[in-house]
Amino acid sequence: MADEAGRLYAEQRALLRRMFDAAVAAVAPARCLPPYLQALNAAPPAGRLIVVGAGKGAAAMAQAVEAHWRGDPAKLSGCVVTRYGHGVPCERIDVIEAAHPVPDDAGMSAAQRMLDAVAGLGADDRVLALLSGGGSALLALPAAGITLADKQMVTRALLKCGAAIDEINCVRKHLSAIKGGRLALAAWPAPVTTLAISDVPGDDLAVIASGPTLADPTRCADALDILDRYGIAAPAAVRALLESGAGETPKPGDRRFLHNDARIVASARAALAAAGDVARASGVTPLILGDAIEGEAREAARVLGGIALSCAAAGIPVAAPCVLLSGGETTVTVKGGGRGGRNAEFLLALALALRAHPRLHAIACDTDGIDGSEDNAGAVMTADTLARAAARGLDARAHLADNDAYGFFAGIDDLVVTGPTRTNVNDFRAILIDGRA
Amino acid sequence: MADEAGRLYAEQRALLRRMFDAAVAAVAPARCLPPYLQALNAAPPAGRLIVVGAGKGAAAMAQAVEAHWRGDPAKLSGCVVTRYGHGVPCERIDVIEAAHPVPDDAGMSAAQRMLDAVAGLGADDRVLALLSGGGSALLALPAAGITLADKQMVTRALLKCGAAIDEINCVRKHLSAIKGGRLALAAWPAPVTTLAISDVPGDDLAVIASGPTLADPTRCADALDILDRYGIAAPAAVRALLESGAGETPKPGDRRFLHNDARIVASARAALAAAGDVARASGVTPLILGDAIEGEAREAARVLGGIALSCAAAGIPVAAPCVLLSGGETTVTVKGGGRGGRNAEFLLALALALRAHPRLHAIACDTDGIDGSEDNAGAVMTADTLARAAARGLDARAHLADNDAYGFFAGIDDLVVTGPTRTNVNDFRAILIDGRA
Repeated sequence: MADEAGRLYAEQRALLRRMFDAAVAAVAPARCLPPYLQALNAAPPAGRLIVVGAGKGAAAMAQAVEAHWRGDPAKLSGCVVTRYGHGVPCERIDVIEAAHPVPDDAGMSAAQRMLDAVAGLGADDRVLALLSGGGSALLALPAAGITLADKQMVTRALLKCGAAIDEINCVRKHLSAIKGGRLALAAWPAPVTTLAISDVPGDDLAVIASGPTLADPTRCADALDILDRYGIAAPAAVRALLESGAGETPKPGDRRFLHNDARIVASARAALAAAGDVARASGVTPLILGDAIEGEAREAARVLGGIALSCAAAGIPVAAPCVLLSGGETTVTVKGGGRGGRNAEFLLALALALRAHPRLHAIACDTDGIDGSEDNAGAVMTADTLARAAARGLDARAHLADNDAYGFFAGIDDLVVTGPTRTNVNDFRAILIDGRA
Repeated sequence: MADEAGRLYAEQRALLRRMFDAAVAAVAPARCLPPYLQALNAAPPAGRLIVVGAGKGAAAMAQAVEAHWRGDPAKLSGCVVTRYGHGVPCERIDVIEAAHPVPDDAGMSAAQRMLDAVAGLGADDRVLALLSGGGSALLALPAAGITLADKQMVTRALLKCGAAIDEINCVRKHLSAIKGGRLALAAWPAPVTTLAISDVPGDDLAVIASGPTLADPTRCADALDILDRYGIAAPAAVRALLESGAGETPKPGDRRFLHNDARIVASARAALAAAGDVARASGVTPLILGDAIEGEAREAARVLGGIALSCAAAGIPVAAPCVLLSGGETTVTVKGGGRGGRNAEFLLALALALRAHPRLHAIACDTDGIDGSEDNAGAVMTADTLARAAARGLDARAHLADNDAYGFFAGIDDLVVTGPTRTNVNDFRAILIDGRA
């Protein structure tokens, strides 16, 4: 009987992992970028093609551009920045690795190189900007008057206080010399084509990587509001920059942006759809709850767990066998001293919310392969997770109270470790309700 | 244009209100009790029928029993306890009103009267127990050795710390002389029929009103764990009772419970289904997310709001016009000094999470008609709620930070006020995504 359950749990675990892998594969740069490069090949610039980019997928995107660019190789050059460990070899485009989520000197130097690379271009040239999630932190160049230390302090404080990602990015844009459209301004009069892998709910281009090539609807006053909202004591130079309006970004409608274009090439929606296809192929009904789930990770777990419990108890909103798929980005307000990103924390809280229900299993991973600042993508749980943990002396509630979901899942070998995936469409969650009576 | 929007919002508000009213009507005692009384009329006891009961619906349930009982009126008597303001006139069954959510002397005296009423019955008599949500607090009789003040202190602390309702009830059962099956034990050898309106996800009979007539699977040790989990410094007498095991309840399988039966006569599921019917009749597709949503109210709002935003942006999980319906019971960890129950707090956080999206409107109410300890059932919001509030100088974030959702919605006349509904299937939430392009 225990063997039977063990075999079943192994199957569910494998199915959950296949769903996650399919989600990531669907948004890999090598798969999703080529269709959009055809237009560039059909109407190449008379002058040069300068590739810039930032994000966890930037190097893989640059590699895909090199592989599919049909123009004169000598006209192609550029520079992209990605996270440490996310680089891949490119021939003509320089790949720089830098720190994430807190910026470092390497990111700063990469940002300056991009500004230099697009300076002095003409209308015959073209800039191709390759953006993906993580670009905000990687593309760090403080606005005149503030230091990288100032920006790091503010970024750390925002990450720690549970601010929403668009709030964090609003502040970042107004403290930057390159974000919020400033990179495209520097390239003017060269037109800028932006291809982006979206890690933000709603796929708002101006938000991805803090929109270095997109006009910015937010204002200095919004950034100040956000700092005040979370009680962040920003350095005086930061407040001065925001209060003076010197940090203001170019706004939608700016004529220097009229010849630019921008496309989302991959998104959480595509990833969730791919996972849904895997489920269906296994006879499991997918219900996609969307790509916009936010909220404190442990509370989101109670809400989504409640929906899963209703599926198991009453077939509402969907009858088992089924899987609830969702994306978005939860947040963690750190209170304890443990390890673990938001996906592992979500999953630990979910295990508790599901109370070892025998038919409920789940996976929660960051599609970039790195949950928070750990070496795992996330974690997986089956109905016996709490029991297995208890057998090893692990107290799930104590680990959750200490923000130590990593330690918990590491202790029962339930971490999901993929290494960097070199793409990023944010969180991936699947809660599987198996169909046993 | 503003008039057009105003007219539309009025329509959406009216539709949301009709859904809530239909949900409540579907679980009214006068509608849902009679089918279950037919069995009693078909096989009435040879002896007496003693009606006992507790909960926000207890008086209305007693009234329905009197209206539909076809046996000898002289054989019918009893006593039920309901919340202040929830009483209705009965002829043969005494209706007592008492305090909720923190018990008072009236509840204690009612509990003692019920124990007295069922004492000395024979196997020819029958006890009919009418249970509904709120019964836990209303049916307060401290176990031997502890005082009402002890119980009140523990109940207040549990309510304030964000404990889940089943955790609160587990503790209550073990500090009680009547809960957790003890009322049925007192009635033995008379068989006990329990008819319950469920306010708990999953409709577990042993949990509703803390199961005074149902065997209890939880133990003193569980109650101690819960007190420790939330760091509640319980009075010494309470700890002594739990540690000694003297507070232990009768367990499932106890032979004195074998001739008893129990039925759920109404539940959140029926209420949500009725609301779904109203939606469909208006051309709006309902998606019922179940009756088991838990979690901190403001975070649940961000999660459910994220699903609604995805509906609006992408038609996922369901295409507009649609409505997301859910039940369950959120919790509020009180940090501020304002007024308002969990449903108003949920709705205020939802208004912020939806960011004034022009197609999103919502209602959140307690089906008992009383949100927390206020005079409103909940509140309603339309796409212009934040704008209307701002125009009146109300700061939504500040009100939320102060747990003052009541003040916020009162200030824009968006409270939903029904008075006591005399039934209770817990929270009702509807998020409406209108179908405009």
